[in-house]
Order: sequence, then structure tokens, then C-alpha cells
Amino acid sequence: MTTMNRQARLAARPTGMPKHSDWKFVDEPVPELKDGELLVKVTHISLDPAMRGWMNEGKSYIRPVAIDEVMRAGGAGRVAASKNPAFKEGEEVAGNFGVQQYAVSDGKGVRKVDTKFAPLERYLGALGMPGMTAYFGLLDIGKPKAGETVVVSGAAGAVGAVVGQIAKIKGCRVVGIAGGADKCAYLKELGFDAAIDYKAGDLKAALKAECPDGIHVYFDNVGGEILDAALARIALRARIIICGAISQYNNTTPVKGPSNYLSLLVNRASMTGMVVFDHAERYGEAAKEMAGWIAAGKLHAREDVVKGSIDTFPETLLRLFKGENFGKLVLAI
Amino acid sequence: MTTMNRQARLAARPTGMPKHSDWKFVDEPVPELKDGELLVKVTHISLDPAMRGWMNEGKSYIRPVAIDEVMRAGGAGRVAASKNPAFKEGEEVAGNFGVQQYAVSDGKGVRKVDTKFAPLERYLGALGMPGMTAYFGLLDIGKPKAGETVVVSGAAGAVGAVVGQIAKIKGCRVVGIAGGADKCAYLKELGFDAAIDYKAGDLKAALKAECPDGIHVYFDNVGGEILDAALARIALRARIIICGAISQYNNTTPVKGPSNYLSLLVNRASMTGMVVFDHAERYGEAAKEMAGWIAAGKLHAREDVVKGSIDTFPETLLRLFKGENFGKLVLAI
Repeated sequence: MTTMNRQARLAARPTGMPKHSDWKFVDEPVPELKDGELLVKVTHISLDPAMRGWMNEGKSYIRPVAIDEVMRAGGAGRVAASKNPAFKEGEEVAGNFGVQQYAVSDGKGVRKVDTKFAPLERYLGALGMPGMTAYFGLLDIGKPKAGETVVVSGAAGAVGAVVGQIAKIKGCRVVGIAGGADKCAYLKELGFDAAIDYKAGDLKAALKAECPDGIHVYFDNVGGEILDAALARIALRARIIICGAISQYNNTTPVKGPSNYLSLLVNRASMTGMVVFDHAERYGEAAKEMAGWIAAGKLHAREDVVKGSIDTFPETLLRLFKGENFGKLVLAI
Repeated sequence: MTTMNRQARLAARPTGMPKHSDWKFVDEPVPELKDGELLVKVTHISLDPAMRGWMNEGKSYIRPVAIDEVMRAGGAGRVAASKNPAFKEGEEVAGNFGVQQYAVSDGKGVRKVDTKFAPLERYLGALGMPGMTAYFGLLDIGKPKAGETVVVSGAAGAVGAVVGQIAKIKGCRVVGIAGGADKCAYLKELGFDAAIDYKAGDLKAALKAECPDGIHVYFDNVGGEILDAALARIALRARIIICGAISQYNNTTPVKGPSNYLSLLVNRASMTGMVVFDHAERYGEAAKEMAGWIAAGKLHAREDVVKGSIDTFPETLLRLFKGENFGKLVLAI
């Protein structure tokens, strides 16, 4: 009997929030493996803000997903068959598997994971790309020094929560910005010095109160008004890391540029963009250090695992843009 | 007979373009010098875009000029009397003398200049703060490498013209953006590889045509739409220097933030603010190198010396914001 592989493919380039009709669902037979290939039965699909960007036409840091192509996504699962000597049937792996039930891979970018150390979904979060993004963005670009104030937006998200915890490990004062009292309470549990609920009112006043010495490092995941409020509060020679801009991804109007950008001049500060893939050569080193922090109880992670299927991918993805997820959003199929 | 000193003082904080009523003119007697002081008869007053910012209330990189205070300005002139052993009557000097006929100084920040080497006004331009700004902004922050493309806005201005010429000395392809055919012709005379007249039409298309490999270093003096157009054309790992934003200084609406700032992320690029005073310790080193380039005919300078008086300062200043000056704007009194 032929095994069928259900896939979510991009049907149309969305305007604003992706609609159900921007997707189509296709069943195709799992192909015969060639030499060097392995077949992965995908059990966990990573849902990330960056996916919205991959759906757009135009030059970016990675080519857009083509119309009719299986949607690009990180994922994790189990090797179902292998003609690649580096992988054995039954091994657990993470990689770029796409939104589908089965992925055929030549092994490139596929890494083995250890579910005795951490649950599979964590390798899509703190021990995966979001964790790497936090690690390299904060440490290599932000270069926080002990005693400095680090502010992170999207602080309860997959990247933000790790940024804040690493900043604490490095001896900084850490202020997280998140939406809602629950998320803010979670940040305090993680050891953040302060948590600001941007939905609760005057963000600028709150930043002023919580950052009496100004902001030395600002890690931005959201853009828009929050970036502007942070710019208004940066310290001399502050470093701003532009990691994402989730508030702007579904805009149907032009992106809101930061009106307060001249604060960079006043404060001799810098704003630098980052893409995690640039640091691929050092993923191993970072993963080892992060695993050490997790084992030592210094770095905690939370995943929001939504049970579903390939067909529930579209609505699950939207939870990200509505701020409904709490921790790293993963679709378990 | 008491010598009188006519001064332009700030009467009110301007909204938008400074009006004549934002100034007042005061005559006061030149005071007796105390030990350690010198008296400078000011002959040249430097008019700089940054002056507009000094007129505003609020935290910036330097304290605002107070209401009723003599307007802050760079200047040059001759020592009229001295009780400071480091300065002799008759010596020519440049410093922060304010918009007035006579300045009393303790000698701090006053430097002697050599008018056999260059005319006095040049020590307010290429051999003064604008030259230092160009030197440190381009070399220390922009770090251009031979073969890279450097774009500068406000390219026919005091800072921009020096930026472009230093970039040529460093072996870069240099593209200047300026307003009007005359200014663009001047840039070609200075050796710029290309000059774009932003008033002539499609700036984005022109940048695309003139920067086939993208922009590696963008030195921004103007902000607004021009900054956005440059952001849309930056190369991987581009460096943007935020030196000023003359297009925004007289806004009565909020500053236009750069809508294309996410190009920093896509291109792993950085945008960094600079203030020349931070480099004061190295002015001597830079001035020496710049003088060498001038002597070797590699660095040309042009000043727009407007003859007038303290009373014509207000309208002369406005020439900057209307783009009417051609080269470093200096008021000779």
C-alpha cells in the first residue's frame, strides 16, 4: 500500500493576515528514497513569525516560498526510513521539513536530537532556531555587559523569553514587554526584573520607570510603536537588535518607520539587523552552552503545543499574529 | 571709549522654520578681560544644520541654547586682546564663539589656524567641524573598503562633499545625492563617480542604476524620503551613518521614520548615529591627514561666504534649510 503524504502548499500570496484560501491541501504518495536520502515522519511543526515574510514576493534574506510549493517550516519527527548512512530508522531529528506529514531529505541541515534531555518540541524552540536567534542576536550584536539594562519585546515569545533569561545569566537588569497580565506574570517567574504589559497603558512612562539608567540593549521582535517607545529611552551608545517586526508583518499599509530614529544620533547608538542563519557555523557551540544552562536550571522554556493536523495549520499559524500563543508555538500532528 | 559687542540671542523657541521674531539683537559693552582670558574679534560665523536642533527644548547630545542666550555657533577671527599666555594679539583662531562680534574665551576649544595654508573660512568647513564629522563618520563608523559603493546625501554640503572625496581617496565608488543640476555638476568636478539630483525625479531608480552592487556605506545628512530610498538599495552588511536629518529639522509634524528600516534585517545591516564631539581627542590627527590631502590636491573645498552682519544672521541661516547654499555656508561680518 502506498503511504500518502498530506501537505499544506501556498495557493496565493496573502494580503494582510493569511486567509484559509491562501492555502491548499494536497495528498501525494511518499516517493521511493534514493541513495543518500532519508524519510522523516513529521510529528511537530514549528510556527514562527518569520513564516509570514516567506509568503511574500520580493527580495529578502531567503527566497520566497513559491506558489504551489509546500510551505517552508522547521519541524521535528522520527526517521521512518533511511538510505543515508548518517541516519538510522527510529532516530529523532529536527530540520527544515515543511508543513507536511512526511519529508524526504538528503540529510543537510537535519540534526539528531535527544528526547531524554528535552521534549521534542523544545528542539523547535529554546534548543532550536528561536534559541539560536536569541543567543547570537543578544550576545554577538547586543554585547550586553553586567549591570546594563536589557529590554526585549515579544518577551513571552520563543525568542524573547530566551533573550531575557540569557541577559539575566549575564548579570543584566532585564525588562520584558509582552501583551497581557498572564504573560507578564510568566516573565517574572522566569526571573525578569520587570515586565511591562503594553496593552495596559502608557508604555513610554513604564519604560521610564523601569529603566532609570536608560536602555543599553534593546532586542526588538515587534517594531511599530513599541520600537519607537524604546528608541525614546535608549542610553548613550545603546545597541538595538532588529530581529523581527511582528506588529508590521500583516500590514496592508506601508510599514511604520521608527519616528524616533534620530535618538540613534543623539545617543550615538546603533540599530542592527540579524538573521540567525548567518551564525550556522556556531549553532553547535551555542546549543551546548544553552543545554548547560537548561540542565543547571538557569534557562527555562515553555512551548505552546497545539494538537491538530496539516489541515489545522492555517488557523494555528494565526495565533502568532494575534498574540494568542504563550511560549513557542508548535503544531503537533 | 567702550567697545560695544552686538549679539544675536535666542528670543523664542521656533516652530518650524525659525522666524525673525525668534531672535533678538543686543548691544553690550565688551567686558574687561580676566587673567587667562582672551578676546576674539569674530570675522566669520559658521552656519550649520545642527544649529536648528540646538534651538529646541529637550534632551539632546548638547544642552539647548537658553532663551536670551547668545546663539551658539562656531566662528573664526583674530585675537584682539589676550591675558592668556597661550594666545597673542593678532593671532588667527577658530572656536565656539557664538553669533556676536566679540567673544571672550578662556581658550578652551580655541585653536590657532594658518591662513597662509587655507583661507579662514575653510577652518569652519573642510578643516573644521564639518570636515571632522565627515572624516570620523565615514572612516570610523562607515569603514569603507576599496571597491565598495559609498552614497552620501547632502553631498554638495560642507560635510557631504568631504565624505565623498575621502571615499574616493579610499578607492570607493562614490555616488552623491544633491538638489539641482549645478550642485550635481560640482560633485562630478570633485571626482564623484555619479551625482543624483533628487529634485529631478525617480530617486529609487537612479540609485538602482548608479549602485548596481547595492550601497555598502550610506552617509545620511538629510533623512526623510532619501533615507528610505537608500535603505531600499543597501547591500548585505551595509553601514548607515546617521549624521543629520536636515529634511526633518523644521517639521511641525512628527519626524518621518524610515519605513524601509526592515531592510536592516534583510541585509544584516546597521544604522549608527554619530556626534563629532565624541572624536575630539583625535581632531589633530584628522586635521593633519586632511591638510595633507588638501596640499596634495586630493581634497577640494568650497565655501559659500555671505557678507553681512550680526543682523543678517537669521536670513542667512535659512539658506541652509532651503538648500540655497553651495558649499560650506559662512557669514562674514
